[in-house]
Amino acid sequence: MSEAAITRALARFLATSRWEDVPEIVRHEGRRSLLNYVAAALSGHADPLIARLLRVLSPLSGARAATVVGQRARLDVLSAAFVNTATVNVQDFDDTHMPTVIHPTAAVASPLLAWSEHAPVGGRDLLHALILGIDAECRIGNALHPSHYRRGWHTTATCGVFGAAAGIGRLMGLDEDHMVWALGNAATQACGLIENLGSSSKSVGVGNAARNGLAAALFAQQEVDGPAQPIEGARGFIAVATDTPHPDAVVRDLGAVWEIRNNTYKPSPCGVVLFPVIDACLALRASHRLTADQIAHVTVTGHPLLLERTDRPDVTIAHQARVSLQHTAAVVFLYGAAGIVQYGQDCVDAPEVGALRAKVSAAVDPQCPVESAAVSVRTTDGRTLDKRVAAWRGSLALPLSDANLEAKLRDVVAAVAPWCDAGRLIETVWTIERLPDAAALMRLVVP
Amino acid sequence: MSEAAITRALARFLATSRWEDVPEIVRHEGRRSLLNYVAAALSGHADPLIARLLRVLSPLSGARAATVVGQRARLDVLSAAFVNTATVNVQDFDDTHMPTVIHPTAAVASPLLAWSEHAPVGGRDLLHALILGIDAECRIGNALHPSHYRRGWHTTATCGVFGAAAGIGRLMGLDEDHMVWALGNAATQACGLIENLGSSSKSVGVGNAARNGLAAALFAQQEVDGPAQPIEGARGFIAVATDTPHPDAVVRDLGAVWEIRNNTYKPSPCGVVLFPVIDACLALRASHRLTADQIAHVTVTGHPLLLERTDRPDVTIAHQARVSLQHTAAVVFLYGAAGIVQYGQDCVDAPEVGALRAKVSAAVDPQCPVESAAVSVRTTDGRTLDKRVAAWRGSLALPLSDANLEAKLRDVVAAVAPWCDAGRLIETVWTIERLPDAAALMRLVVP
Repeated sequence: MSEAAITRALARFLATSRWEDVPEIVRHEGRRSLLNYVAAALSGHADPLIARLLRVLSPLSGARAATVVGQRARLDVLSAAFVNTATVNVQDFDDTHMPTVIHPTAAVASPLLAWSEHAPVGGRDLLHALILGIDAECRIGNALHPSHYRRGWHTTATCGVFGAAAGIGRLMGLDEDHMVWALGNAATQACGLIENLGSSSKSVGVGNAARNGLAAALFAQQEVDGPAQPIEGARGFIAVATDTPHPDAVVRDLGAVWEIRNNTYKPSPCGVVLFPVIDACLALRASHRLTADQIAHVTVTGHPLLLERTDRPDVTIAHQARVSLQHTAAVVFLYGAAGIVQYGQDCVDAPEVGALRAKVSAAVDPQCPVESAAVSVRTTDGRTLDKRVAAWRGSLALPLSDANLEAKLRDVVAAVAPWCDAGRLIETVWTIERLPDAAALMRLVVP
Repeated sequence: MSEAAITRALARFLATSRWEDVPEIVRHEGRRSLLNYVAAALSGHADPLIARLLRVLSPLSGARAATVVGQRARLDVLSAAFVNTATVNVQDFDDTHMPTVIHPTAAVASPLLAWSEHAPVGGRDLLHALILGIDAECRIGNALHPSHYRRGWHTTATCGVFGAAAGIGRLMGLDEDHMVWALGNAATQACGLIENLGSSSKSVGVGNAARNGLAAALFAQQEVDGPAQPIEGARGFIAVATDTPHPDAVVRDLGAVWEIRNNTYKPSPCGVVLFPVIDACLALRASHRLTADQIAHVTVTGHPLLLERTDRPDVTIAHQARVSLQHTAAVVFLYGAAGIVQYGQDCVDAPEVGALRAKVSAAVDPQCPVESAAVSVRTTDGRTLDKRVAAWRGSLALPLSDANLEAKLRDVVAAVAPWCDAGRLIETVWTIERLPDAAALMRLVVP
């Protein structure tokens, strides 16, 4: 593949891909990504940040065609794409494309769903556009990796804008030329910094990716043309934004290899490095029928990154709990779960959790792979119980099952969205291709 | 100045600068930048691209508080900031901060003026915010230069978002902490590619800078917080976006050196490399009372860049005329001017212009500085007339006078906005500090 043809080849694929050529296993990963998207969106809707974003955007919103997850307020399609993407991402409970650390679905699905409320579309076309948008987004991410992320670009935002433009361009039926323009309008809007993670402005970056990708396609539809090679050109996005360019990765095996198959889903609303810790604690608890009062001390051993990010014994607010190995081990041993409830403020404040957190310490093992961890429990009667986990549940090696994803959604609904009919929502996602009007999905995620 | 304190020091300056501490010569450059802004905006309002942008944004616009230059339609403040910035920049007739090649005023003044229609503000405060916004924008540009631009970032867009956030943050009265957040929200939205110049998508980049800078400040006002060091942090914008970082340039001599004093204004709506050519032709025409029928041949000699960009003998559409040295020399010898009219389609099509274009050839002189050019005329009666120009009118060495700027505005009004009262507009800009309601200015730029 000549570098000169990369944007064009991608645009042609996006414009001409046929549903019949998308394998069932890829389609199903699309449904799984969408189910996880809905769970993550419901998990974030009550975050105070969302109310702040709405205070800015609601008065500036035009034709209120689109639903905002978990809210009665409606917004125009651009603003809804922004807020819903922030909602999905704000609790860090969304998905992860493992090769690039992109959280891919939020910025693509949000504008697609908003657009489906403005211009009716069948569920099959929406799912197809979602799979294609995620493919474009993650392929561009592959082309930039690893320098792009290491340098400090927040790939979820920088690549999300391309995914949104690609998905919406497909849903609008843009032809190859207009799709090149949509990708060009996206390229000049690609931005987002790692420096902003940990602050509310992270949501500005990811929300913008969705909004601006939708705008990029809308502009292209109205003949706002772009350059021929926005991705691979001499001053195109790859050239400016990475020191390790792999432009061919954008188009290699297009239609044969689907990046959505590298997508993973978080079993718990916490830092990904904590997942093997959760699994080890769960295994110890079950196999030894451990109760909290039998625990004298817990030692969590892992990769240096685990300690750097999560060795946090003093936890007073929920935000900190999600990046605390002490809190995580404590709630798993106490309650046998690490869901929304266990990372909520009530659990943070519970005296028994505080008491057990104080018995957990961390140790580094430079030889320990980052996806692995070991937990050692000393019991009050003098035993030492050990468990090492090599791959976390939810990783590519050990993917969440469909039932796990359903349970994740039910857990979120029970904890923060009791008005939602989880069963109907799950059924709607699994059968989305049969929906004549994809917007029906959005009617299930508002009170 | 410790690097750790750069964003904070800039924010403090923006939040606490006093009008009394802004020297009159700086204030006057602010007025001149604003006058040139208005001229450039009127020059662009009828460009077909603006209608396309409006077709996308108008139905999505919320509370229609803000004027769009030259249009009856009104938009919400975010969309108006976008469209007016595109309008100012679309004809390449706006200003240039010479050290960085940023076109600084459009992305700052557009959101300020839009905001002034939503939340009334005096002319003095608006001018002060404009000067501060441009200072922040160009200082960040200095900190990134030259690698940032060379690599392919369109600095007008990437730095414009900071200028807009800084100016609006000032106008809103954000305190130091909130200003740090506004700059952080801007940093995660900073983008724009050189690759997109020459296509309509350039306007998406610059329009977005203004829109997103305004949004950045609005979010900060609603407590959407950002990181402590978005500009100078380890993964802050300087670290990710340049290989030649000069973080101290953001705050060096803050309040003593004002970047707006490095601003320049285009005397003609054409490529900046053509300015010395225009001046040389004008000088030859005047000093020898040359008429077109006396000209046998014209040779334009200049820097390699002059030929690379503008050696374009075949001109059929207005867009090409602005980057053609043949067209430029022809119209100046014929009409003694190189304004909007001379770069319009009628002049492109005029037989006498075509005939004279055919007599103009280009020659390269590698020794010739880029800001210089030489023109040699062979007359029909066998004379050779030479003129070399060392610095173009409008450069920092030879700035446009206030009268020149007024003439530029009058020329634009006569050519494309005859409904506009140029005299009243000029008077309003020169006396803007006395305006109790700065929005009065916008009422003069609509039909």
